Amino acid sequence: MSAHEHVAELARRARVAARDLALATRATKDAALQAMADALDEAAHDVLAANADDVRRAEAAGVEAGLVDRLSLDPERVSAMADGLRDLARLPDPVGEVVRGSTLANGLELRQVRVPFGVVGMIYEGRPNVTVDAAGICLKSGNAALLRGSRSAAASNAALVEVLRRAIASAGLPADCIQLVPADSRETVKELMRARGLVDVLVPRGGAGLIRSVVEESTVPVIETGVGNCHVYVDAGADLEMALAIVLNAKTQRTSVCNAAESLLVHAEIADAFLPRVVPALAAAGVVIHGDQHFLSYDGVEPATDDDFGREYLSSDISAAVVPDLAAAIDHIRRFSTGHTEAIVTGDQAAARRFVAEVDAAAVLVNASTRFTDGGEFGFGAEIGISTQKLHARGPMGLPEMTSTKYVVTGDGHVR
Amino acid sequence: MSAHEHVAELARRARVAARDLALATRATKDAALQAMADALDEAAHDVLAANADDVRRAEAAGVEAGLVDRLSLDPERVSAMADGLRDLARLPDPVGEVVRGSTLANGLELRQVRVPFGVVGMIYEGRPNVTVDAAGICLKSGNAALLRGSRSAAASNAALVEVLRRAIASAGLPADCIQLVPADSRETVKELMRARGLVDVLVPRGGAGLIRSVVEESTVPVIETGVGNCHVYVDAGADLEMALAIVLNAKTQRTSVCNAAESLLVHAEIADAFLPRVVPALAAAGVVIHGDQHFLSYDGVEPATDDDFGREYLSSDISAAVVPDLAAAIDHIRRFSTGHTEAIVTGDQAAARRFVAEVDAAAVLVNASTRFTDGGEFGFGAEIGISTQKLHARGPMGLPEMTSTKYVVTGDGHVR
Repeated sequence: MSAHEHVAELARRARVAARDLALATRATKDAALQAMADALDEAAHDVLAANADDVRRAEAAGVEAGLVDRLSLDPERVSAMADGLRDLARLPDPVGEVVRGSTLANGLELRQVRVPFGVVGMIYEGRPNVTVDAAGICLKSGNAALLRGSRSAAASNAALVEVLRRAIASAGLPADCIQLVPADSRETVKELMRARGLVDVLVPRGGAGLIRSVVEESTVPVIETGVGNCHVYVDAGADLEMALAIVLNAKTQRTSVCNAAESLLVHAEIADAFLPRVVPALAAAGVVIHGDQHFLSYDGVEPATDDDFGREYLSSDISAAVVPDLAAAIDHIRRFSTGHTEAIVTGDQAAARRFVAEVDAAAVLVNASTRFTDGGEFGFGAEIGISTQKLHARGPMGLPEMTSTKYVVTGDGHVR
Repeated sequence: MSAHEHVAELARRARVAARDLALATRATKDAALQAMADALDEAAHDVLAANADDVRRAEAAGVEAGLVDRLSLDPERVSAMADGLRDLARLPDPVGEVVRGSTLANGLELRQVRVPFGVVGMIYEGRPNVTVDAAGICLKSGNAALLRGSRSAAASNAALVEVLRRAIASAGLPADCIQLVPADSRETVKELMRARGLVDVLVPRGGAGLIRSVVEESTVPVIETGVGNCHVYVDAGADLEMALAIVLNAKTQRTSVCNAAESLLVHAEIADAFLPRVVPALAAAGVVIHGDQHFLSYDGVEPATDDDFGREYLSSDISAAVVPDLAAAIDHIRRFSTGHTEAIVTGDQAAARRFVAEVDAAAVLVNASTRFTDGGEFGFGAEIGISTQKLHARGPMGLPEMTSTKYVVTGDGHVR
């Protein structure tokens, strides 16, 4: 069977499953999530054995240590995945929520109700926990999932999906609510992107290259996630102690994530006071500063290029510049922002208001670390990713963002 | 200048204008809308002269009468466009609306606020009133508009946009909030579709071919509008008098619109009672029925093919079939629906509930004419089109559907 036929066949089976899943009650879906969690706990040994194969293959292929770590599972990580499914079962069901409703002048009753998309395709890299997260979130939101993970995690993903499918079937829902798309060739990704009419939405999660290629090539509607060249701007009116804490937290609390800070902008008025504090503090935390001429007068700072200001390092690096004023900071952010998260540190109310109004990003933070742009931190309970597009969902996506709506209009013979 | 350079230049000017427009208060935008309306009234003579040129060209080219009528303006139509702008001024501003908000456990204040998309591209056919509608809706929702109308309306659109731009500038907003994209070649449409990063959203309005090509070729996110192969299903439990009124209204009240009924399904149990009433009634209203074998036993019915059941006629034609039961009706609709509007006529509560749950469309109507799926009828006050996609907006799109959101998070030095 060609990749085309294979993916089309999986998608057709997903559509059939999606019909049943869309009508499933919350009780049925939650029971399935509990069954999935229990099955995962019970099958931990098999999952870890499959994962050990993936890890061995990756090590033999000379994959770098960080990637191997992201690929690796241990009993705690498997247990955490199962607990994630149990958490999902406790969240409200987005399906059926009445978003708005009214009775029109002519007596027609209008309701806008949340419904599942239908079939959701996930294209992702590395970590096998995304397989379980995505399966759980899609199931709870009533969507059949086509999961296309990375080739490096193929054995782990196959073992996980096998366990999840059996549990779903045991709970009385179609096993085809969750299907794994083979990762043996790039063709299966291309076929998912062309499956318009069979797949309702694609959500790519991974590096900038993956996301760009999906956004540009897909004829299936896409929700773009994740690339974050996040700035922290320290305004003239900032409390420097607070600014230092926020910069350090945003850059160093976890460097490999999309809401980590990648660029520091400092108002010229406070540069002489702040740079002597922030430069050594970042250096002490192991951060390499790629700075403009103002920063270069400090020890250990590397010269920055425009390429640096446009980069999402995802490492212990930060670009840094001094800007003449708030307007210049906003212009710099407009030029280099990926529209993910931008933060200002200031005690000046007018500056905060202007920054919030003029910076165009999924999240704009005032006196808080960029690391807060996160579904868990926002209280959504689950997160499928962080959207950096403006259509449909922007920012952390929880369960409601994985649904569409339908207008239900009820009359008693109304005509125009 | 190539089409590529020309469209890119227009888009860059739109982005600059969009920055100011996004920050404009409701008062400023409403004043601009009033100025646009007044200017249109004052310039009616010039607009009608330009339109007369378009009409003459169309007639000389042998364009069919229906299309010439859609292209033609008269003093009443110009006046109606101006009144439409005044109506928009009276609607609430979607920008700045807080969609949700809370204070998190750690004291961070979270608000999700509506913001404009930025730059919206409209690609449309025929009627010059879309130029004014779209300009007004984009302006009120804070979006700079790139308007790519049809070549046949080029003189009318140029005259309209000239008037609107002057009025916008007189109200203190950038004239470039509204720009006309030349309609002299198909290349300008292609360039709009490729202007990712410069254009935030494209909204195609027109025939199925136009919409399909935009959806498939665009790398800019698209909101798909309008193709409606709308069904009326008359259930066994229907009041036949009510069913007759709804079928006639849905098919004949206006045939050229996307919410007109294109297909009639009748439950087998009531076929012998209903067909002898509905067939002559439709015929008397000038409707040609393309029916299955059940309908073919009546005078004047043409034989239907699968092609008929898949067609959006937009004319005095309707496809028609008898189905054995509700499940078969739902299956038929799943096969042929374009996901726009589907209606059931029934007195049976269980049948209504099942139809609403299982039919996948932007609007599902119970005991009401399909003609009600409309922004005006739904009370939205303005409509940019009817979305038939599941992402972002589904069904009639009003002003809120022309916006994105931004999370604003405020702390006092919060770190993780």
